[in-house]
Amino acid sequence: MQIIMLSGGSGKRLWPLSNDIRSKQFLKILVDEYGNPQSMAQRVYGQICEAYPQINITVATNISQVDSIRSHMGENVNIVLEPERRDTFPAIALSCAFLAYEKNVDYNETIAVLPVDSYTEHGFFDKLKSLDKIISSDDANLALIGIKPSLATSKYGYIIPGKKISKDASEVLQFVEKPEEDIALSLIEQGALWNGGVFVFKLKYVIDILRRKLAFSDFNDLRNRYNELDRISFDYMVVEREQRVAVVPYQGTWSDIGTWRTLADEMPYNVSGYTKTEKTVNTYIVNELEIPIIALGTKDLVIAASPDGILVSDLVESSQLKPVVDNLEDTRPMFEERRWGEYTVIAKTNNSLVKQLLLYKGKAISYQTHIHRDEIWVIVSGYGEFVLDGEVKRVKEGDTLRINRGQKHSIKAISDLLITEVQIGTILSEDDIERYPDFITEEAS
Amino acid sequence: MQIIMLSGGSGKRLWPLSNDIRSKQFLKILVDEYGNPQSMAQRVYGQICEAYPQINITVATNISQVDSIRSHMGENVNIVLEPERRDTFPAIALSCAFLAYEKNVDYNETIAVLPVDSYTEHGFFDKLKSLDKIISSDDANLALIGIKPSLATSKYGYIIPGKKISKDASEVLQFVEKPEEDIALSLIEQGALWNGGVFVFKLKYVIDILRRKLAFSDFNDLRNRYNELDRISFDYMVVEREQRVAVVPYQGTWSDIGTWRTLADEMPYNVSGYTKTEKTVNTYIVNELEIPIIALGTKDLVIAASPDGILVSDLVESSQLKPVVDNLEDTRPMFEERRWGEYTVIAKTNNSLVKQLLLYKGKAISYQTHIHRDEIWVIVSGYGEFVLDGEVKRVKEGDTLRINRGQKHSIKAISDLLITEVQIGTILSEDDIERYPDFITEEAS
Repeated sequence: MQIIMLSGGSGKRLWPLSNDIRSKQFLKILVDEYGNPQSMAQRVYGQICEAYPQINITVATNISQVDSIRSHMGENVNIVLEPERRDTFPAIALSCAFLAYEKNVDYNETIAVLPVDSYTEHGFFDKLKSLDKIISSDDANLALIGIKPSLATSKYGYIIPGKKISKDASEVLQFVEKPEEDIALSLIEQGALWNGGVFVFKLKYVIDILRRKLAFSDFNDLRNRYNELDRISFDYMVVEREQRVAVVPYQGTWSDIGTWRTLADEMPYNVSGYTKTEKTVNTYIVNELEIPIIALGTKDLVIAASPDGILVSDLVESSQLKPVVDNLEDTRPMFEERRWGEYTVIAKTNNSLVKQLLLYKGKAISYQTHIHRDEIWVIVSGYGEFVLDGEVKRVKEGDTLRINRGQKHSIKAISDLLITEVQIGTILSEDDIERYPDFITEEAS
Repeated sequence: MQIIMLSGGSGKRLWPLSNDIRSKQFLKILVDEYGNPQSMAQRVYGQICEAYPQINITVATNISQVDSIRSHMGENVNIVLEPERRDTFPAIALSCAFLAYEKNVDYNETIAVLPVDSYTEHGFFDKLKSLDKIISSDDANLALIGIKPSLATSKYGYIIPGKKISKDASEVLQFVEKPEEDIALSLIEQGALWNGGVFVFKLKYVIDILRRKLAFSDFNDLRNRYNELDRISFDYMVVEREQRVAVVPYQGTWSDIGTWRTLADEMPYNVSGYTKTEKTVNTYIVNELEIPIIALGTKDLVIAASPDGILVSDLVESSQLKPVVDNLEDTRPMFEERRWGEYTVIAKTNNSLVKQLLLYKGKAISYQTHIHRDEIWVIVSGYGEFVLDGEVKRVKEGDTLRINRGQKHSIKAISDLLITEVQIGTILSEDDIERYPDFITEEAS
């Protein structure tokens, strides 16, 4: 069995912690068994590795998430880059082509597609063994995990199971997508399950479907012609058109943590960050800013603050957040995790942007130029190796470095390195960057 | 008649907008008749000037508020600097000595002491004419304005009026300080009034009381011996010991805007700043940060954000804010208005502080040195004249200036000038400053 994980998401439902780049799966709002902060991606990855220590994992994602995937899942996962966002069928198909053509995986091998952001217990991943068995023995073309519903919600898709095909699996009679709550209730009474977003099949099954859509020669050919694939979900394109679908029920903790309310249920502490509360009831606070939050006499509230903004929402109403965030003016992300560390935008004006950069020891930013901006760097703490147009020099706390537009530059952190960067120019965008072959070499982390 | 205004206040009850330096009277949360933002100090000053165009005004305050007083009230008011904070009797006494010894005001002239932060209508200041008449004609030694109470609160002091001494004035029978609400209610039924914090008397009246406490030769002598004056309020020291007190009732808008709830009542708009609301009820938002606030489904709430912090409070409970703010770790102010402009702290670490400075055209910061920090300035926009150890040079957008510890420096804004300042050092305090005679001359504003 091979695992494909899908990592996407626009992240507006957990604004302001999540944004287009920092999707909810990378927010360190959970804790691991030792009490350390943990993201959903780290949790899921750890759970899979524990259940299947030798398994190969391939993550389908876009370029903006690569640094985060590496930082949360390490170097052992394969990453398949979607050339653009086109929904789940193209992403899964591309990943299958990668396994078939680049990794020479046997066409009869079982592939399990998992979301990267399910909050579940270990038992959930154990179910994959049953699904693998169903697929290996050709009892079905497609096998799913069905979650025993804990409430009649219209948020999820429902699976109606039919007759048993083994001790713990049934055939699927029908799918009902996001029914009204009263219909959901009657479906649950008939034994319906939530669709957990897990798809298990033989590699050749999806490759065959893909070939019928598009004649392609190999992985690179498919990737180059990615925009010829319809924007369609795997559910619509494959699952709902398949006659031979099996479902294995799972009863236990499961949440897609898609709203602040569901996240609040799983938060290890009611408040985190620099926060004071007084006479608060059922109030959840996540403060990622350096300044304090005081909550006084509040009730049934979520308060979240990040460099992107501040949310104050009734817990139940928080499920309505996405359209409100959609209405915000388009803004650049104010915080990003990168392969080399992280940055926060601390101020911006019409013609300037001030960032605080933290480079981890041994890491370096790529050798690069900008066309539209000058940069002034002040080394706030640490030691580094700075390159400007091919000249290397050691830099330390208190040094000021000036990089004019067009000048090639890079810096490597000898120790953890904190830099205040002032950008000056009329166009200040992360896209204004040209990268060159590395001039200095990173140390292995 | 002469006016003395008292401008003090620690500003914790309207945190995070107010702080030790930026007291509530300087917050621009009201609007003037043209819809422009207006502070309480600006409003009161404007109301007095309208009622008494030729009147002399003296403001008693401390050094940290001088820049704000000048910025909100202009150059025409006298400023009496309290050498330290010692309560209202010393502050009023010092101001009276200033008028008597420095301004040679006649000992028989009427002095009206007013708070700088009363939110009232014009009729309130018209009442001063009645009080002036009572004092001039020696009908009382002390005259007060009594506010007709709008509710039985324990927040204020109450004045119990006795027999009439003129058409609109009565003698004062008794004072009751902050009674329980049920007692307040029965007092109001007997005709009690709130003490509006206005004291009117003849100059010699207070000078005589002061002389009995301390033998002093002139204003400078008194100022040098200010710490010999007891920390005592004018109410306890003077008002409650005086037999011949008159009170003139005032019926109309009056608030000391001492809590977020009372402020909310007077806010011209429910929300200000970069804010989106959805399904909110009775929710007041003031956002001074650059990042958005989203409020979703909230009710009876005040949300306020400034560089000092974020408050989310139930409206009624907001009166309990001060002790919660007292519990915050001691922090430096993150925003200050200065004579020359304003600054915001945008980031800080153990050994660094990043500020955004805005100097108004024509203004200059004083010629100064720091012992414990280096500063790196990046001119983000505008033109200026920079002095470093006596050398003057023109600077413009994009220039980087380095000021090592011990180096004398100043800068004058030729146009409005925006500077990003990175401070590096282990002690980073506003107190680490030595000032020298100005090297460059400001232009008149």
